Order: sequence, then C-alpha cells, then structure tokens
Amino acid sequence: MKDISIGIIGGTGGMGRIFADLFRREGYICLVSGRKRGPDITTMAEQCQVIIVSVPIGITAEVIEQVGPLMKKDALLMDLTSLKTEPIKAMLQSSPAEVIGLHPLFGPGVASIAGYTICICPARGERWIAWVRGIFTKHGAILIETTPERHDELMSLVQALNHLNSITMGMVLSAWGVDLAELRRFATPMFNTKLAIIKEVFTNNPRLYAEIITLSPHIGRIIELYGRALSELETLTKERDAEAFTALMEKRSLWRA
Amino acid sequence: MKDISIGIIGGTGGMGRIFADLFRREGYICLVSGRKRGPDITTMAEQCQVIIVSVPIGITAEVIEQVGPLMKKDALLMDLTSLKTEPIKAMLQSSPAEVIGLHPLFGPGVASIAGYTICICPARGERWIAWVRGIFTKHGAILIETTPERHDELMSLVQALNHLNSITMGMVLSAWGVDLAELRRFATPMFNTKLAIIKEVFTNNPRLYAEIITLSPHIGRIIELYGRALSELETLTKERDAEAFTALMEKRSLWRA
Repeated sequence: MKDISIGIIGGTGGMGRIFADLFRREGYICLVSGRKRGPDITTMAEQCQVIIVSVPIGITAEVIEQVGPLMKKDALLMDLTSLKTEPIKAMLQSSPAEVIGLHPLFGPGVASIAGYTICICPARGERWIAWVRGIFTKHGAILIETTPERHDELMSLVQALNHLNSITMGMVLSAWGVDLAELRRFATPMFNTKLAIIKEVFTNNPRLYAEIITLSPHIGRIIELYGRALSELETLTKERDAEAFTALMEKRSLWRA
Repeated sequence: MKDISIGIIGGTGGMGRIFADLFRREGYICLVSGRKRGPDITTMAEQCQVIIVSVPIGITAEVIEQVGPLMKKDALLMDLTSLKTEPIKAMLQSSPAEVIGLHPLFGPGVASIAGYTICICPARGERWIAWVRGIFTKHGAILIETTPERHDELMSLVQALNHLNSITMGMVLSAWGVDLAELRRFATPMFNTKLAIIKEVFTNNPRLYAEIITLSPHIGRIIELYGRALSELETLTKERDAEAFTALMEKRSLWRA
C-alpha cells in the first residue's frame, strides 16, 4: 500500500505537520496544504486516496463539505478535530468515502506520538481501519476507540471544563492587578504548575481553546454545574465554616472511599 | 548558640517534622509535641528559647494564646501557618517574646527545604532574625521577607484562589458522574496534571485546604471576581461566539503584550 498518497489539508499547522512527518517517514507521498500554499482542494482529492482535514474547528465542516464530494468511495476521509460528532456527521453526509474521525489527545509540541493517546471513531467502511490502527500503533501511540458522542462527552470534561477552569483562574489573577514577577516569587510548586497551564491556554493559541469551549455540546451543563459548585462553596466561606467545607469536599470527591 | 532548645508544638505533623529534623541536624535540642504526646505547653515554654507553633490554622490562635504568655522577653515565638496577619497579631498580643511569622511555601512531602521558598514576616525584636535567616539559608531555602498583610494578599491568590479553582473543577467532575478510570484513558497530558493537583487537594488533608480558603481575608473578593469571570464566559458560550471569547481572553491575559 506504499503507493498511496495522503493529503493533509491544514498540514502546515502544528498538528498536521506531526502527522505529515509520520506518514513521510513511513514512505508515503504526503501532500500538504496551508491557508495560502500547497495544492488546492480539487488537486488533493484527485491525487490522494487518504485525506486528513486538520484545520481550526470553526471551519472544519466547511472544508469537509468542499473536499468530501470530490472523493471516491474507496478513499478515506479523516479529520483531527477536538470534537467528533459534528465533523463525522459532515464527513458522512458530504462524501461517499470511508470515514474515520481522529482526535490526537496531545498538543503539537510533542516530539513524537509515542506514548500519547489517539482517539479513533470509525464511522464508515472496513477497508482502511486496520491500516490506520497499524501505522499509529507502530509509532507507539495508544489507541482508544469510541463513538463520537461518548468522545464529545468525555472531552467536554477533559478539555472544555479543564480550559474553562484555567481561564477563570487566569481572569481573576488578571482582575486582581497583581504583578506577575511578584506573584512568581511567592509561588508554591502547585501554583507554578497551574500558572504554566494558564499561560499555555492564554498565550499559545487562545482561539483553539475558545473554540473547544464555545463549540462543546455540553458546555451549558458544565457551566451550570460549575456555577452551582462555586455558589455552594461561597456560602460556606461566608460562614467561615471550614468543617462544613471539608465535609462538602469529602462528599463531592472523585476519590470517595 | 548551640545550647539553645527549640520546641515545636505540632512537631509530629508533616511540616513540623521537616523543621524538627533540620534543627536536630544542626545540633540543637528539639522538643516536639503532638496532640497526645510529648511535653506539655508549660514544659515547652520553660525549657525552650525558641517555640514554633505548627498546628492547624483553626487552632493556631488558641495555642499561641496558651504558650505566648509563658515565654520570656528574650525568647523567640514563631508559627508556620499559611496565614500571617492573625497569627502574628495573636503572638504580639499574648507574648512578651520576640516574634517572627514563617510560611514555608511548599508541602510536607519535600525531601529537604533546599530550593524551596520560606516567607518570613519579622514582627518584634532584632535578637533572633539573623539566626533564623542563617539556618534556613544554610539549608538552601530561598527567603522572602514581607509584611503579614502583603503575604496574606498574595497567598489569597497563590493558595486560596488556586485551591478553590481545583475544588470547583473536582466538584463538576464528581457531579458529572463519570468513571475515573475511563476519564484517565481519555486524558490529555494537561488534564492529567490538573487531575493530580485536584486529587492532592481532595485526598491529602482536605481540612488544610478548607481552612486556607475559608479563613483567607480576601476570599469574599476572590469569589466575587471568580463568579464575574464565569458569568462573562457563560454569556459568550451561550452565543457560541469563539471570536468574542478569544478577544476576552486576550484582554484579560496576565501576559498581555
């Protein structure tokens, strides 16, 4: 199967480049297009048996609807988006090709995919799935397969809630008007770890985090539960009731005995 | 000065033990008392030139008021509490001794104090401060000196806000009813880091974190700002407006250009 060509739309971005490098190291021809360079979508669809859409979430459906109809039935269409339900629905509706949704559960800063998790949602066809599993497993990735809906639910916690949590803390620090250098002098190791995460979210592609949050299908419920938790804690802090506060933590612990 | 004796009330607890070990390695006699063992407070005050109160925040003032009046003018009274204004006020009011407030900015799990920060609030007297600075510096600690009020303000961000942030996220995860093992399979590296912090707060001495939050003099204002941030983000998620969400993040960033 070494004579197949892979096209990555958005393959000049961080995550696309990781996969382009991986396919090239495996000896495949890999065409890559960025916003302003590389082959156009028609050329990609003509020359490639496998197309991977790796563009920002907000324009993923649009790109899928352009490339999907140009693909053949025995081709493979995949995406790398942090959400799976909507992109997979768009791939199934717009294209006759086989469809697999992918979500690499790591950032573009990793040296290789070895030891990292890739979530796979097989959606149509049996021809390509073994090839996809094989190539990622060979490079040391941990594969988990699930439905798009279950993926999106778990990711609403792993990503949307997590980033929302970092952003609220960052906004309070900013609203307080404290000097970052002074804050760092007084930091505990735990605070330093949190601050590094908050910095990553605020400075390294805030648009991605904003899209993960605003487009999450469960964000309404998450913010509702978040507000409710805050309000319960507020009541106990107003009463300065450390005992009831501790009891609440023990009752709401994920590690409850 | 090697013939001085140091008494640590609460010295059988994690943090007290770190300091007891350090003083003993320096050749000092170190008496240690726990809730149910070791010399009583009167014996401690009679035999020791230096007393360190290392008990939970909630009973710190009470213990200070017991030991403080029994101490001599040329003795040294210190505490290790996460708050400084109230304990230092209690030490100054109840005792004729010299007073220094200490706050080690690390947890009891560290192997040694080397490389970690200790915050020092000198409050009364000149006799002991050089000795205190000398012994911690010799063991590699980074010392920062400030006023109790400034300490408590910065710690309301470094500790109270930080732990509140971890607890709200933990409560939402728990309320969602997700299985911890499944969540871990889908975790990103960033989520794993957050989850480790949340686990630490919920399982390793939740009472301490509850006291840091409920007794923080700035917690009211922190929760107000926290709720306001959440409410601003909620509005933008309801509108699914990733662009305005990104713009808000850039406006409220600590790393604003």
